[in-house]
Amino acid sequence: MTTTTSPISTATTDFYPTRTGEGSKVLDRRDPVVHGTAEQGPFDAETLRSFDAKGYLSIDQLISDDELTLFKDELKRLAEDPEVKQDERTVVEAKSDEVRSIFDIHRSNEIFAKIANDPRVVNRARQILGSEVYIHQSRINYKPGFVGKDFTWHSDFETWHAEDGMPTPRAVSISISLTDNYSFNGPLMIMPGSHKHYISCQAETPEDNYKKSLVMQGAGVPEPQILSDFADRFGIDVLEGPAGGAIMFDSNCMHASNGNVTPYSRSNVFIVYNSVENTPVEPFAAPAPRPEFVGSRDYTPAGQ
Amino acid sequence: MTTTTSPISTATTDFYPTRTGEGSKVLDRRDPVVHGTAEQGPFDAETLRSFDAKGYLSIDQLISDDELTLFKDELKRLAEDPEVKQDERTVVEAKSDEVRSIFDIHRSNEIFAKIANDPRVVNRARQILGSEVYIHQSRINYKPGFVGKDFTWHSDFETWHAEDGMPTPRAVSISISLTDNYSFNGPLMIMPGSHKHYISCQAETPEDNYKKSLVMQGAGVPEPQILSDFADRFGIDVLEGPAGGAIMFDSNCMHASNGNVTPYSRSNVFIVYNSVENTPVEPFAAPAPRPEFVGSRDYTPAGQ
Repeated sequence: MTTTTSPISTATTDFYPTRTGEGSKVLDRRDPVVHGTAEQGPFDAETLRSFDAKGYLSIDQLISDDELTLFKDELKRLAEDPEVKQDERTVVEAKSDEVRSIFDIHRSNEIFAKIANDPRVVNRARQILGSEVYIHQSRINYKPGFVGKDFTWHSDFETWHAEDGMPTPRAVSISISLTDNYSFNGPLMIMPGSHKHYISCQAETPEDNYKKSLVMQGAGVPEPQILSDFADRFGIDVLEGPAGGAIMFDSNCMHASNGNVTPYSRSNVFIVYNSVENTPVEPFAAPAPRPEFVGSRDYTPAGQ
Repeated sequence: MTTTTSPISTATTDFYPTRTGEGSKVLDRRDPVVHGTAEQGPFDAETLRSFDAKGYLSIDQLISDDELTLFKDELKRLAEDPEVKQDERTVVEAKSDEVRSIFDIHRSNEIFAKIANDPRVVNRARQILGSEVYIHQSRINYKPGFVGKDFTWHSDFETWHAEDGMPTPRAVSISISLTDNYSFNGPLMIMPGSHKHYISCQAETPEDNYKKSLVMQGAGVPEPQILSDFADRFGIDVLEGPAGGAIMFDSNCMHASNGNVTPYSRSNVFIVYNSVENTPVEPFAAPAPRPEFVGSRDYTPAGQ
């Protein structure tokens, strides 16, 4: 296990304590959101300012129509592959026996490895994080029509800090949409500005929590009153947008999605980039780190 | 039991067959949507034309701020009243033991009886239905934040026809919003124009189906492929709007709502007006009529 090189947090000084059993509270974020500069590109200064303020940005078209078709076909193929279905890195819904997520696709799949290391994606992550980046987690998500499940409010960083040992929120996620996101088919919702505050959560982490939390958030869910206060204070942005576009969002955004009773399914490719200067230490609030396929310990820079 | 006075449908000639066990199919609606004229008021010709085409209309402010406060206080009082909770006309969620709907409030409650008979509401229903109207059903609905459940696609008329014996879709519902409706807190969704088509459903009606279907639609749910075709053809309108406003919609609109993980609850007063020329006969596809509190057999004209 390596120790962190971050100047702020170490395994002995935890500025983002959580799941301590001492009750929820709201702490200020101590670390910057944007680490790079407009000169580095591809984002201009205004886009970086907006990302800093809101914690997310939308890209109308990230991939070509041909890539979109390729990715969708591959997603379909994978979801129907019996070997993939039996793999421990695949989340299958018990009730319907259908594939909901496939983790670690930047290592297991050539097509998705390519986009995960593509300059269009990696350079954007590098600019926001101000350093080389590596892939902390990747997956494809499939949210079917009619029976798509909700996902309650949480900060990804809270989980990655507690369970993976990520020292600071110097990580950014990209969700590449393979289907159109309407307000009505369970799109991503973000409380803009919430990422500048850190909710220290109440519940302690059960052993092997990840097996449940990949399907439904359990530990790491803030108390209702804090969520109500946050919603009143920050509002809720509903992220609509076309297939082929993408959303990048800070690791500490408070986000969620509603269920989906419409016929329109939602699927996306989801990749988490972490700064190579923010590599994990021991988990801050869990008995053991989660498996490699949810929290990678391979810090090879992406896109090289 | 009285027989219908409708010139089109009788108990022996069913133009809206459903739950026949013979598979789903789409039939044309044989009856008009708007029966009255602009001269009668309060709606102008353009609003009536739009209602005819889309199957619904929105009213930005139907009740005063004082009424809104009064209704909300009464809703809260009722939800906390142990006697109300035990009443068979109240739907309590098993898991949380919280009140979700209270039926028959136009008879059981003075405040809601008053608004159900108020000219602002009744005159609008009269104009659309072109006759005196009576109340077929009334309820208050409470959809809490964080855990608000979804409701899948259905036509109310399909149920009222099958289970209550309503001959034709000459009925209109009004939903008076007691809370703000955002795209993200599980608002009403309608497929505009769907009301001009009737989906004859597959499933036969189980005995005492209403006990389940008040909580979650079971029989009377169209097949997924038909819903997909309808969504592609008609689209989905998400009905946002402020507390104190209202939505009126045709009894045969295909509608649904998603769940609600946001902190913002939704509650409304829901009243169904049926034309006095469209009073129920024997159920068209159920062993026995549902109880009075879900399908009234008191045809006294409202607002008199």
